[in-house]
This record gives sequence, C-alpha cells and structure tokens, in this order.
Amino acid sequence: MTAPHPEFSPRMSRAFAQTEDSPVRALLDLVSRPGVISFAGGIPDPAFFDLPAIRAAYTAALEKPERALQYSSSEGEPDLREAIARKMTAEGVPTGPGDLIITTGSQQGLTLLGQVMCDPGDVILVEDPTYLAALQTFGLAGARFVAVECDDDGVVPSALRAAIAEHDPKLVYLIPSFQNPSGRTMSEDRRRAVADVLLETGVMLVEDDPYSALRYDGEPIPTIASFEGMAAQTALLQTFSKSVAPGIRLGWARVPAGIRDAMVVAKQAIDLHSSTVDQLAAVHYLTHPETHMDPTEKLETYRARRDAMVRELPRALPEGTHVTHPIGGMFLWAELPEGWDTDALLPYAMAEGVGFVPGSSFHVDTSIRNTMRISFVTNPEEDIVEGVTRLARAVQRYRAEQPS
Amino acid sequence: MTAPHPEFSPRMSRAFAQTEDSPVRALLDLVSRPGVISFAGGIPDPAFFDLPAIRAAYTAALEKPERALQYSSSEGEPDLREAIARKMTAEGVPTGPGDLIITTGSQQGLTLLGQVMCDPGDVILVEDPTYLAALQTFGLAGARFVAVECDDDGVVPSALRAAIAEHDPKLVYLIPSFQNPSGRTMSEDRRRAVADVLLETGVMLVEDDPYSALRYDGEPIPTIASFEGMAAQTALLQTFSKSVAPGIRLGWARVPAGIRDAMVVAKQAIDLHSSTVDQLAAVHYLTHPETHMDPTEKLETYRARRDAMVRELPRALPEGTHVTHPIGGMFLWAELPEGWDTDALLPYAMAEGVGFVPGSSFHVDTSIRNTMRISFVTNPEEDIVEGVTRLARAVQRYRAEQPS
Repeated sequence: MTAPHPEFSPRMSRAFAQTEDSPVRALLDLVSRPGVISFAGGIPDPAFFDLPAIRAAYTAALEKPERALQYSSSEGEPDLREAIARKMTAEGVPTGPGDLIITTGSQQGLTLLGQVMCDPGDVILVEDPTYLAALQTFGLAGARFVAVECDDDGVVPSALRAAIAEHDPKLVYLIPSFQNPSGRTMSEDRRRAVADVLLETGVMLVEDDPYSALRYDGEPIPTIASFEGMAAQTALLQTFSKSVAPGIRLGWARVPAGIRDAMVVAKQAIDLHSSTVDQLAAVHYLTHPETHMDPTEKLETYRARRDAMVRELPRALPEGTHVTHPIGGMFLWAELPEGWDTDALLPYAMAEGVGFVPGSSFHVDTSIRNTMRISFVTNPEEDIVEGVTRLARAVQRYRAEQPS
Repeated sequence: MTAPHPEFSPRMSRAFAQTEDSPVRALLDLVSRPGVISFAGGIPDPAFFDLPAIRAAYTAALEKPERALQYSSSEGEPDLREAIARKMTAEGVPTGPGDLIITTGSQQGLTLLGQVMCDPGDVILVEDPTYLAALQTFGLAGARFVAVECDDDGVVPSALRAAIAEHDPKLVYLIPSFQNPSGRTMSEDRRRAVADVLLETGVMLVEDDPYSALRYDGEPIPTIASFEGMAAQTALLQTFSKSVAPGIRLGWARVPAGIRDAMVVAKQAIDLHSSTVDQLAAVHYLTHPETHMDPTEKLETYRARRDAMVRELPRALPEGTHVTHPIGGMFLWAELPEGWDTDALLPYAMAEGVGFVPGSSFHVDTSIRNTMRISFVTNPEEDIVEGVTRLARAVQRYRAEQPS
C-alpha cells in the first residue's frame, strides 16, 4: 500500500490561487444567526411566494416526465423561450424565441457575457456604485472597470460620451430600474439620452433588469432595450428570482444576433442546460396568469417597509448622511459624511445584532468607505424599527471609540 | 429619434470570436428528426424514470416553500450534502458535508475545476479517447491535453508515470467505470496501480464517475478515490443524471481541502447556487430509498440492449473492425480499419435514417477518423436491429462511392 503523498497540495490557477469569498456572502452567513436583524441580503419575504401557482406548475411539469426529466437544449426549452418572447414583446421589446437564452438565474447571464465578450484588460463602463457580483463576475473575465459620473437620474449622458471616447469600452453595464445597491431609477428622458449616446457610438449595453416587478410608486418606465434601435445592441437580463422565487433559479437573456450562439456554447460547458423540471414549471406558471397571486399585498407590504426604513434610518446615522428614497426594488443606499468607515462600523452593528452591507464592495474604487446598502423588503416594520435602534447604538459606540 | 447604429457588431472575446457548437449537440438536433434511429446521444430511456418517487420528492420539497423557493448557499443545501456524504462514505470514500459542492450537473464540476486549477498552457493527461465535453470545457480554460497510452484495462501505469515525468501535468482526468466513449472499465488491480503512481508523484486526479449505477455484469469496483490516501488528492464527480434523471440537473464534486472554497467562489459567479427546489427534492429522494423503483428491470433491459447491439453491430461494419463489449454504462466504441472516415460516413448514415457520433471529437488527435461511438440504452431491441441494418446499408454505399 502506497502512503498518502506527503507533499500533495493542489496547484491552483493564478486567478484562484488567492480567492476571496464574496464579502456579502460571508456576511450573509453571519447575519443568519438567530436574533440578528439583517438589512444585508436582498431576500424576498417568503410570505409572498406564490405557492399555489408554483405547486400547480411543478405538478403540471411532472405530468410530462418524458420531457421534464430528460436532457434539454442549452439555449432553453422552446416553450419557455416562446412564453418569455411573448411577454417581452408585450413589454415593448420585440422578441422571438431565437433571441433568448435561458440562464440558471440572471447571474449566469453576466458570466456568459463576460466569457463571450471580454478579454483581459477590456474596459466595462459602470454606474458608481454598481452591483458587486457584476464587478466580481466580469472581473473573473479580466475586465477593467471605469465608473461613469452619476446624478440622481443615473449616468450623466455627457460623462458617458466622454468615457466612451476615452476608454473604448467593450460594454456599458447599467441597472436602470431600482438599482442595486443605490435604489436609484433612471428617468425615461435619461434613458432616451443614454440610448442616443449608445446608438451614436455603437457601444453594446448590458441592461440588468431584475427588479422591475417590484415598483411601489409611479408608472413603469420602458427598458432602454425598448428604445428604437437599441434591441440590436443590448443584452437585456431578466429573472424569475425577484418576481416569482429565487430558489427556482431561472433567468433569461435577450441578446443581439451573433452573441447568442457563443453564449450557448459557453453554457454547454457551464451546466449543459438549466433544470428541465424548473423550466417546464416556469412555462406553466407564465402561461397560466389566472393562477397567480394578486401582487397587490406584496407590493403594499414592501412599500410600507420602504416607508418605515426611510422614516427610521436617519435617526441612526450621523448628521450629513444622504439616504436615497427608492421607488422600487429592495435597497436603499446611505452615504455617510467623509471620514466614516462602514467596514469598520460593521462589527459594532453585528455586536448589537443588526446587519448591513458596507458599500466599499459596490464601488470601482474600493477605498470609498463611507457608504452602506440597506435592504428593506425582508423584515416586518417592528423589526425595522428595532434594527434601526440597534444600528443607532452601534453608530454611537463606534463614534465614541474613534480617536478624535 | 436616433437611428440604429449602422455599424454595430458585437466585439467578442478572442476565445469566442469563432465558436463552434459541440459537434455532438449539432448532431443530436439532426437525429431528433422523426423516423431517425439514433445511436448518438447518451439519453436514458424515459420509461425507467422513477416517476412516483420523483413526484413525491418534489411534493415534499414544496412543503417547505420558505426554504425550497428561497436563495440557498453556493456550496449546496446542507441536508443534500449531508445525505450525499453518507452515501459516499458507505461506498468507501469517507466524506463529510464540508468536502462537497453541489453542481448544476456534474458537467459543471468540470468547468469549476478548469477555472480554479488551470492556467493557459497547463497540461491535463487524459485517456484516449475521452469524454469530449471534458476536452471542450478544460480547453476553454486553456488546458493542453496529452493522451496516455491505454489498453483494455484503461491507462497503462508505466505510460502514466512517464507522461507525468515528461509533462508535469496539473491534472489527470479519468473515467474509470464504463468510460464515455469507449465503454471500457478499469480493473481493480489497474486502479490500484494508477493510484500508486499518483500517490508517488503527487498529481491530482479528476475521477469522473457518472455511470456506476448502470452496471450490467460483475461486481462493483471501488472508485480510485477510495484507495487509501487518494481522497486527499482526487476530485470525484458524480451525478443524479444517469441514476435518477438528467432533467433534474444535479451533480456533486468531492474535492480536496483548499479547492472547495475556490470552487464555491467560481460557482457564485456561474449561477450563485443550483436550484433549491431540485436540491430539496433530491434530499427527499436520497433519504427515502423505500420509495425507489427497483432498478432490476431497467438494468435487465439495458443489458439486453447492450447484448443486441454487440450481437448486431458487427454485420454492419467492415471486416477488421474492433468493437468494445462494455459491462455497464451507455456506450460501445468501434474502431474501424485504417483509412475509414466516420465523419465522412455520417451523412450516408443520416441519409439511411440512423445516427451515431464520429469518434474524432473524442480524440486529442482529431485527425483520427476511423472510430465511432454507439449508444445502446435508448432504443428497444427491434430498433437496434433496424438501425444496424440501416447502418450496414450506409457502410455499403459509402464504400461503393470511395475512390479505390
């Protein structure tokens, strides 16, 4: 019998030789401890999962076991792409099943786009702050990020035009509705102005649109992809995670001709295809709207929680803090005065039993330390009030212990 | 209104600028036409899906909607890793839940390993022929492949030792049981000898084990990972696709300490986590063996189809062809005499209404053209007989049209 090799140690790739776990995921482990009130993750309230319709959908899927349990195609079940194409067309983006690829969550759309579009060193223009998993995922493909100046309406068109001229980016990555993490929404006029810049310059847009079903105020605003000419140069990512349930793990990407075939090849390597059971359940769900739960109660509850958080949060944070007032989605964003460090504040908050996500991971320039993301959808109002009280104590203790 | 950008065309990454679809997947589209008898894909017969137990499993999963429909952890549901760890331990590889990562099909394990282990130019030693999607997937990570000499028992240990000395490989990739595509099985003695070489040299093994539940003759042989010392330097990939159903799209990897955390980070980018619904259904299935269909009928049916294919196939193929006689799995492998070209033969077969996979894609040296993979599990015996008759006609027509 040969002994175990005394010196065996795996030789990792350079990209993963010193991997760091996502700071948010490590944090989510911490805040899932009993008694902690978490404002950290973007976790839907399970009370609003549409259980009767979802159960009916899985039952229906398993009535076709020879399809539901069998291998499927990498681009996704034809019936699912057909149903999604109809939905997108009705929402203003003319779409055929051949424009779509089904993804295992819309997160996977980011990975596929990174693989097929980006070589090391390629520039991607982003909002600042932006979705941290997009930074991580495109970063694995070797992309460099340049933050474009934003105001309360989103990216500033003149700054976008200048950044395109200076950096020749491969992609522009935007989350126009209820942005993660800022909660900001681009106005329709701003979307049109951004579309004009992209059409003039011919730069491809990645439009990440996971939250648009979670609108609490005002009327829906069209996606940038729906503006004339833009569908041909936009990858539009949407998902069931926020509108139905995250555990089903299905999203989709509508992408320009010429990109989809490459994404299908990339997906073959990644998982061959998304779960056929889940896909056929999604087909049943989408094609049976009469079974769906009325979303009114969910939206009213989330709106009331948003209001509670906007009302309560200022008493916890230092004078001079700027807090956004999102009209949809899951998050608001606080910018504390210069000199505050939310990474350093977090242990104080955890000691008090409340969690949030420090903002540094959402910035291209991670030395920015005075911002934080606050999720408002998961907790009932009394927990929001109690969590903010804990956060206020944490801020006081943190302030008391800083050298003056 | 700005007009569509006249020159927009997506600028792809170098790796995907000229992607080719998997030849097998393109072929599977062809052979799915009505009337074609396909010996191409490794498609389980849906008659043997364990439908009552699977339905019960999904019903049970959706009885915990607050878990089943919610976000999960990237490494996989704790209960599923617990159940799989018990199964693997019982099968001779002592395993804890912390050794495992749940994957969206075991195909995903290959992608994760490629990402975390391989830099461009790294060498991976493989059997010849080997699983074509492994070549494609590790190839996307930039790996170079070196084929190690094989005999009917699998890789030749002395050749493996010499190849390690010459090429300093990052990984050795083997499919010891009922190999895809060759149908070959490594004997226990050979596995021990291979383990000894790997333990001496400290090279990491990727042991791909998707088929071991599909054994038609003889007694189970332990995985190489189960030999003393080997678990610490082996990534062992297994799956529900072949034992339960491919559509559920779940597999798992048992990996050495130090690799799993990196794979979890890679998986965060790829899909955040595998479907929670499917994972909780798999927990119920694994922990309720009393609900399972007796596999005897499936194994007897597949065995009879194997026998029919082994009996029939020789009459179709030219004199001097060597055909394997697999004791399990889904495939047998034919090596035609020198000069035959199965890529060129395929259109003749399709014209007769029968499909197979030309062997070239399974070889490191794709100029090898005289081999073919034949799946025997999907079709009933009468279709096997008829399909072989069609193949015989195709071979005759092909031969008649070759310049002599």
